Amino acid sequence: MEIKIVRNILEKNELSADRVRHYCQERNIFLVNVMGSPGAGKTTFIRSLLPHLSFTASVIEGDIASTIDAKRIADDGYNVVQINTGGSCHLIADSVLQGLADLAPVSNSVVFVENIGNLVCPASFDLGQDIRVLISSVAEGDDKPYKYPTMFQCADMIILSKDDVRDVIGFDLEYYSQGIRSLGIKSPLFPVSFKTQAGLQALTAAFNYRAGEKFRCAE
Amino acid sequence: MEIKIVRNILEKNELSADRVRHYCQERNIFLVNVMGSPGAGKTTFIRSLLPHLSFTASVIEGDIASTIDAKRIADDGYNVVQINTGGSCHLIADSVLQGLADLAPVSNSVVFVENIGNLVCPASFDLGQDIRVLISSVAEGDDKPYKYPTMFQCADMIILSKDDVRDVIGFDLEYYSQGIRSLGIKSPLFPVSFKTQAGLQALTAAFNYRAGEKFRCAE
Repeated sequence: MEIKIVRNILEKNELSADRVRHYCQERNIFLVNVMGSPGAGKTTFIRSLLPHLSFTASVIEGDIASTIDAKRIADDGYNVVQINTGGSCHLIADSVLQGLADLAPVSNSVVFVENIGNLVCPASFDLGQDIRVLISSVAEGDDKPYKYPTMFQCADMIILSKDDVRDVIGFDLEYYSQGIRSLGIKSPLFPVSFKTQAGLQALTAAFNYRAGEKFRCAE
Repeated sequence: MEIKIVRNILEKNELSADRVRHYCQERNIFLVNVMGSPGAGKTTFIRSLLPHLSFTASVIEGDIASTIDAKRIADDGYNVVQINTGGSCHLIADSVLQGLADLAPVSNSVVFVENIGNLVCPASFDLGQDIRVLISSVAEGDDKPYKYPTMFQCADMIILSKDDVRDVIGFDLEYYSQGIRSLGIKSPLFPVSFKTQAGLQALTAAFNYRAGEKFRCAE
């Protein structure tokens, strides 16, 4: 019974995700679903990439409460829309559709959707995105791929953030990478410190290339 | 419709939580629901407290996948039972009831229940615990009380873990505390570094006092 209910919710979400895909296809929007634990660095990832993108970009900010992150991005001079879910632990495609209508992004642009900080539930809800980016922080520990396999498996890019504190934390990169490989994941891993900017150039280059693929295909 | 379904799930859980309370009342078990983000330090909190407790203690480990944490606790020489939820993002009281049956804790003892790493969903599911402990890591940033109010509001003790990296991270304790106060929260806050053990003594003393209250009341 409970399984049936969950299936209905997921099926309803899938229909909305198709509508998001249709919206983005029509306007040639590259939609990025940014996921990760609370405090992993999702907003920092977006804010760090924005000035280095080869394309116009805007942001849909998802939070249970507050407009802290949306304000930060607006202060940087980018268009942003805030979605507050109230209590819900993940965004749904319907909210993204509404967010896109409010944001009204220009054609041939990138839209980041910052999901709720949660290493579990967002993995199950398709938002109609082009890619899912997982921000996984060094501070969370090197055993996360073993403990939260679904989130790692659904990610198209894995960003290992706060890489500058790897030694302080005692994070074993080989053990972490082994956990990712053991799940059969082929997605690229980017160790980055947004603080020192180490690794940011490689990440930005890869991201611009991936977004450009969509725009090139549409030409 | 959806709200009704959620209510049914919560009502069903509440009945099981009452059964957990009954179980713990009969055997005089002090049940601790340990919550927090992935990698906040839930297992480390439990392992750090265990040697300093004035009471016998054992552990129910909740994880989506893996037995990494349960093995660590077993290696320390404590009784532990692992619950793997498969995909679920929070423990339910039914699982705790089953875990207690498997663990068979002695009377007048403490049982830690380590919840799934998640700063959202576990707050909504009563496990029949005596107290909820929130492990909130410095590495997650100082804005978490503003963004995840429900989790902070339901906590009986708030542990600010990884306090040794507060300066490295640039964590503003006053802003964080202000966030907690603005929610009307009266629960005590314990800044702790389990690495350097700074703050551990105060935490242990408070915890032993609180657990002792239950045992004293039962005498």
